[in-house]
Amino acid sequence: MIKVGIVGGTGYTGVELLRILATHPDVELTAITSRKEDGLPVAEMFPSLRGRVDLAFSSPDKAKLTACDVVFFATPHGVAMAQAPELLAAGVKVIDLAADFRLQDTAAFEKWYKMPHSCPELLKEAAYGLVELNRDAIRKARIVGNPGCYPTTMQLGLAPLLKADAIDASHLIADCKSGVSGAGRKAEVATLFSEAGDNFKAYGVSGHRHSPETVERLQTLTMNKVGLLFVPHLVPMIRGMHSTIYARLTKEMDNVALQALFENAYVNEPFVDVMPFGSHPETRSTRASNMLRIALHRPNDGDTIVILVVQDNLVKGASGQAVQCMNLMFSLPETTGLLHVPVLP
Amino acid sequence: MIKVGIVGGTGYTGVELLRILATHPDVELTAITSRKEDGLPVAEMFPSLRGRVDLAFSSPDKAKLTACDVVFFATPHGVAMAQAPELLAAGVKVIDLAADFRLQDTAAFEKWYKMPHSCPELLKEAAYGLVELNRDAIRKARIVGNPGCYPTTMQLGLAPLLKADAIDASHLIADCKSGVSGAGRKAEVATLFSEAGDNFKAYGVSGHRHSPETVERLQTLTMNKVGLLFVPHLVPMIRGMHSTIYARLTKEMDNVALQALFENAYVNEPFVDVMPFGSHPETRSTRASNMLRIALHRPNDGDTIVILVVQDNLVKGASGQAVQCMNLMFSLPETTGLLHVPVLP
Amino acid sequence: MIKVGIVGGTGYTGVELLRILATHPDVELTAITSRKEDGLPVAEMFPSLRGRVDLAFSSPDKAKLTACDVVFFATPHGVAMAQAPELLAAGVKVIDLAADFRLQDTAAFEKWYKMPHSCPELLKEAAYGLVELNRDAIRKARIVGNPGCYPTTMQLGLAPLLKADAIDASHLIADCKSGVSGAGRKAEVATLFSEAGDNFKAYGVSGHRHSPETVERLQTLTMNKVGLLFVPHLVPMIRGMHSTIYARLTKEMDNVALQALFENAYVNEPFVDVMPFGSHPETRSTRASNMLRIALHRPNDGDTIVILVVQDNLVKGASGQAVQCMNLMFSLPETTGLLHVPVLP
Amino acid sequence: MIKVGIVGGTGYTGVELLRILATHPDVELTAITSRKEDGLPVAEMFPSLRGRVDLAFSSPDKAKLTACDVVFFATPHGVAMAQAPELLAAGVKVIDLAADFRLQDTAAFEKWYKMPHSCPELLKEAAYGLVELNRDAIRKARIVGNPGCYPTTMQLGLAPLLKADAIDASHLIADCKSGVSGAGRKAEVATLFSEAGDNFKAYGVSGHRHSPETVERLQTLTMNKVGLLFVPHLVPMIRGMHSTIYARLTKEMDNVALQALFENAYVNEPFVDVMPFGSHPETRSTRASNMLRIALHRPNDGDTIVILVVQDNLVKGASGQAVQCMNLMFSLPETTGLLHVPVLP
Repeated sequence: MIKVGIVGGTGYTGVELLRILATHPDVELTAITSRKEDGLPVAEMFPSLRGRVDLAFSSPDKAKLTACDVVFFATPHGVAMAQAPELLAAGVKVIDLAADFRLQDTAAFEKWYKMPHSCPELLKEAAYGLVELNRDAIRKARIVGNPGCYPTTMQLGLAPLLKADAIDASHLIADCKSGVSGAGRKAEVATLFSEAGDNFKAYGVSGHRHSPETVERLQTLTMNKVGLLFVPHLVPMIRGMHSTIYARLTKEMDNVALQALFENAYVNEPFVDVMPFGSHPETRSTRASNMLRIALHRPNDGDTIVILVVQDNLVKGASGQAVQCMNLMFSLPETTGLLHVPVLP
Repeated sequence: MIKVGIVGGTGYTGVELLRILATHPDVELTAITSRKEDGLPVAEMFPSLRGRVDLAFSSPDKAKLTACDVVFFATPHGVAMAQAPELLAAGVKVIDLAADFRLQDTAAFEKWYKMPHSCPELLKEAAYGLVELNRDAIRKARIVGNPGCYPTTMQLGLAPLLKADAIDASHLIADCKSGVSGAGRKAEVATLFSEAGDNFKAYGVSGHRHSPETVERLQTLTMNKVGLLFVPHLVPMIRGMHSTIYARLTKEMDNVALQALFENAYVNEPFVDVMPFGSHPETRSTRASNMLRIALHRPNDGDTIVILVVQDNLVKGASGQAVQCMNLMFSLPETTGLLHVPVLP
Repeated sequence: MIKVGIVGGTGYTGVELLRILATHPDVELTAITSRKEDGLPVAEMFPSLRGRVDLAFSSPDKAKLTACDVVFFATPHGVAMAQAPELLAAGVKVIDLAADFRLQDTAAFEKWYKMPHSCPELLKEAAYGLVELNRDAIRKARIVGNPGCYPTTMQLGLAPLLKADAIDASHLIADCKSGVSGAGRKAEVATLFSEAGDNFKAYGVSGHRHSPETVERLQTLTMNKVGLLFVPHLVPMIRGMHSTIYARLTKEMDNVALQALFENAYVNEPFVDVMPFGSHPETRSTRASNMLRIALHRPNDGDTIVILVVQDNLVKGASGQAVQCMNLMFSLPETTGLLHVPVLP
Repeated sequence: MIKVGIVGGTGYTGVELLRILATHPDVELTAITSRKEDGLPVAEMFPSLRGRVDLAFSSPDKAKLTACDVVFFATPHGVAMAQAPELLAAGVKVIDLAADFRLQDTAAFEKWYKMPHSCPELLKEAAYGLVELNRDAIRKARIVGNPGCYPTTMQLGLAPLLKADAIDASHLIADCKSGVSGAGRKAEVATLFSEAGDNFKAYGVSGHRHSPETVERLQTLTMNKVGLLFVPHLVPMIRGMHSTIYARLTKEMDNVALQALFENAYVNEPFVDVMPFGSHPETRSTRASNMLRIALHRPNDGDTIVILVVQDNLVKGASGQAVQCMNLMFSLPETTGLLHVPVLP
C-alpha cells in the first residue's frame, strides 16, 4: 500500500483527492494537514466522506509526512516549494497541485505568482504532470508539477496539430470556460452563489497565469514560435471546463486526415476520448470522472479549425490527473482507482 | 456473472442503472431495450458512457430478455406488469423501478395510476424493495417493486418512531423537496431549464401518488392508524431529495433516547447514516451515491420532532436501491458495486 | 422630491433599494454611505446602475445624512439604533432594514442578536413596517423597523386565520425556503456557488432570529397563545422565498369560506395576491417585484390547511417593503415607484 | 394610445413583450392570439402578469388584429410573412421577432429556414430592426424584421471597427454564449433543467442561422469581404448573452484611439454602454433591461483585439429591441417604457 499524505485538504482539490483516494485499492490515506482545522475529522467538514474517510486534519508539525511514500500539495502557490526539499530528502515523492513546479521559467513564475522561487534546482528536476504528453518523465520523477486545469485542455487540444506542424502556431486563440469550483473554496464575494449564479463573464482577459504555463509547454511541441490568446470565462456551473480553440491550418489536410491525426495521437490513451468529427462534447459527459473529450470542427470548410475540449476541472484538470501521475510514479496501472463513470445527469 | 437486461433505458433511472452496473463486478450487461432507439449505441445517447458501455438499444422483440437472469424495468408505469409474467415464467427475476409492484391495494393503484392492474396475483408475491425494512422478503423474491423516491425518505425517517410507538401516527407531516431529475427525461415545459431554474414551488399538494404508497407501508409498522400529509416541492437542482418530517411525540423521551432509537435502528445499515443530533444534512453529501442520511431536531424542546432526511433521488431513491435489491436477490454482499463516494462539490 | 440617504449600500438590500429608488418619481437619491468604499461611484461596484445612479459612496462622516428627509439603513444589526437618535433629532425619518426596531421585547433582542439595545425608548415609538397589518402606525411613524423576509410571509399567510380565531395558534408549522441572496453579500464559504449550488439543506432548525419576531407579531393578532415551529431551508436560487405553512382548523369552515376569508382580508391590498384555491404559486411569479402571492390547500379535506406564500425576498421581503413604508410615511400613493412587473422567465 | 396586437404570446419573447408593454405609457394591449389557448387569460399561463395584464388569448380568427396600430409576431419563422400582407393592407404596422424579414437574401433564407419566402416584395421594403445601425429606415418602416439575439451583439460589437476599416474583415471570430431562454419555451429534452443545468456545450458549430444574417448586415458596413466564424454555446443560466469577439487590427491604433472609436460611435445611444477599456462586463448587469454593454481588450498589446458584448437576450436581443423599434415607428421618444434598471443580483 502506498502511504499518502495530503497537505491542505480543506479546498476542492483536496476533497476531490480524498474522494478518489478513498476507493483507490493501493492507497492508504495516512495524513492530512490543516493548521486551522487541527483535530477536526475530515468527515465533519465534508459529510460526504462520513464512513469513508476516518482521518482527522492535523497541524503540519504533528503530521508525520516524512513517513509517507508520497505527499500531495493541495495548497496555495508557494507552500509546496517550501516543504518539498525536506520531503524529498526523506525519500518522499511530491505532487504539487499548485503552480510551484509547473513553469521552468522562474522569471515568469515570479512575475505571475508574485513570489521568488525558493528551490530552482528542484524545479529543474520536476516533471510536468501532463501524462499524455510527458509520461516517461513522470514515471521517473520524484517531484511532479500537476498542470493547471485550462492548460490541460489547451495542450491536449493542440498537441497533435503542433506536432504535425499543421497550424499557424503564432496565432492560436483559446476561448475557455470554467465552472466556479475552479476558483476554489475561498470565501470571496465574486464566487458567491448570488454573484456567479445566472451570470456569465470573461475575466483576466488582459493576462492570466495559465498563459505562460501553456505557452512554455506548447513551445516544446513545435519549432515555430507559439503565440496564444487565452480568454477565460466563468460559467454558472460547479464542475466542468470547456475550451473552444481556434487555429488556422497551414497544411492541406482534409477532415478525414484531421480526425485521423487526433485519433492516432490518442488511440492508446485511456483518459482522452476523440469523439466523431463534428460532435459537440458536453462538460457533463466528463463530470466526476478523469475523462477528457475532444471534438473537431471545420466551419464552412475554411482554413480555421475549431477544437472543442471538455473535462471536469477538478478531476482531469486537477486531482484525477495527480492520481494518474501517482500511479505512474509507483508503477501501477495508470487507470488504477480512476475508472469512475461520469455522473449524468 | 449475472446477466442483466434493462427495459427502457433512455430515462434518468435507466442511465443511472447503466452508470452503476457498468462497474458492478458481478454483472454482465446483456440487453437494453428501446422501441424508438433500436440500433442506437447507448453511448451515443449518453456520451458519458463512451468506452464504458458497449451495448446498443434494441427493440423489445429482438432483445432476448428471457436469457437474462434479471430484468430491470426503468419504464413508465404499466410496462413491467405487462411483461413480468413471461419473464418470471422463463425464470428471470424482475425489478420494477416504476409503481406496478409497489402498492398492494389494487384499488388505490387504479385510482392513482389510472389503469387496472393486469396481474394482481403476481403483485401478491412481489416484495417491496425498501431493503432496510424488508430485507428478508427481498432476498427470497422473484419480483420486486422498487420504492418511490419520496416514500424511501419518509419510511426510513419515520420507521424507528412508529415501531417504537413513540409518535402520533395520525398526524404526520412530510414537507419534501426534490431535484428536477425526479420528473424524468420527458420533454415537458414545466421542467425546462428556464421554467424550473431560479424558481421554487410546491406541486401536487392536494394529492400525490407517493402518498398511498407511503401510507400503506407505514401502516405495516404500527397498529395505530397512519395519517400523512405529504407536500412535495420542486428544487432548482438536478439530483437530491430533502424531506423535512414533523411528528409529535406521544411518549416521554429525551433527545439522547431519541438519537439512540435511530442509531440502534440503523447501526448495521451500510446505506443509512444517522448524523449527530441537531445536524443539518445537505443533499449534496449523498450526490451520486447510495447513501441516505438522517438527522433529528427538537426545536424549543417541544413535543414536535423534526426529522431531516436526504438522499440522491436517482440512487438510493431509484437505481441504487434497485441494485441493492438485486445484490440481495442474488446472494451478493449488499454493498457490491454500490460504494461510490458522494461527489462534492 | 424626498431626499433619501442610504447607510450601507454595498449589500443586496442596498443595491435593491437603489434599483427601486432610481426610478421612483418622487425621490432624489442624496447620499449613500460606506466607510470602506468612500469615493467609489456606486455604479462601479454595481455596473447594473451605470447611467442610472450617479452617486458615489461617501464615508459616514462626510455624508450629510441630516440633510435628508429619510434615511434607510441597509446595514448589519446594531448600526441603525446607534445613529437613529441623531437623525430623528434632526427631523429625519428612519427606516431600518435590519432588526434593531423589529422586536419590542428587548430581552429577546439581546438574546438573539447578542447585543444590548441602545435606545429602547425609540424602539417603543418605532412602527413595525408590515404595511398590510400595520398601515396606520407606519403612516404616522418617524421610525420604522422593516420586517424580516420570513416573518413577512408567515404573518401575511396566517393573519386572516388568526384574526378569525379559526386555527390552533399553539401548533403552527412554517416550513420556509429562501433563495441564497437572503444570506447577504458577505464573503462566506457556505454561500459560495459551489457550496450552495445544486444543493438543498435546512438550517437553524433549533432556533432562528425570525422566530421571536414572528411570534411577537402573530401574538398581536390573537388572544390565544401562539406556538410556532419555524424551519428555514436554503434553495439554490438567487431570489425568492416560499413558505409552506401548516395549521389545524379549530372551526368548521368549508373551502369556500376559507378562500373568502383570505380574499376579503386582502381585497384592497395592491401587493398581496390571493390566488385561486388549490393553486401552486411559484417564487418566480414575484421575481423583482413587490408582490406576495398566497394560495390555500386542504389535502384530503382534513383539518389541516396548507398555506403557500411566495415573494421576492429582496423586494417585498426587504427593500420593496421599505419603500412601501416610505411612501406611506410621506403621504404618497402606496404603490408609487413599486409597480414593476415580475420578471419571468 | 397605440393599439398593440401580439401574435403568438405563449413563448418567452411573447411574455417579455407583455412585461414591457404592460407598463408602457403609450400602449394599449388590444389582442393576443394563440390558436391552442383560445380563451385562456394570459395571466393564467403567466401568473407573473396577474393583475397587470387582463387580456385573454384568442384564436387568430377572432382576434381583430386589423384594428390594431401595430402587430408583433412572437411566433415561429414563417408565420409573420403569411399574415403581414393583410395587416399592412389594413394599415397595420408589423414587427416580426422571428426571421421572416431579417435576411434580404431569399436564397439564404430558404436554405437556412427550409421554407420559401412567401412575400419577397414586402421583404424588400422591410427595415432591419437594429436601431443603432438603422434608425432612419426603421422610423419610416411599415414592417420591421427584428434582429436575432446573437447578431445584435456581433453587429454592435464590430460596427465601429468595420466602419473605420480598422480590422481584417475576412477573418472575424465570434465565440458567443447564450442563456437557455434563447432556445424558447418549447418542450424539448435538450433544454430540460436536468440536461442544460450544471453543463456547458457548444452547438451548431458547423453552421447556425444567425451567421448569414450577421454577415449580410456586416457587409453593409464595409467594402471588404466579410468572413465570420460564429460559434454559439449554451450557458446554464436563464437570461443573458455574452459574445467574445476576436478581430485583428489592420491599422495602427493605440488603445486610447480604439476606446474613443467606440465611445464616439455610441455616445448618443441610450441603450449601448461602452465600459472603460479592459472591463469585464457581466451578463447580469443587463438582466431584464434593454441595455447592451461593450468592453474592449488588447491582450499583450498584440494585433488582436477582443470585444466583449453582453445583453439580455430576451430584451435588447428580442422584445426590448422590438419595442424600441415601435417607439421609433410611432415617433415616440426611443426610450419610452424601456428604462428598466437591470435586476442584480
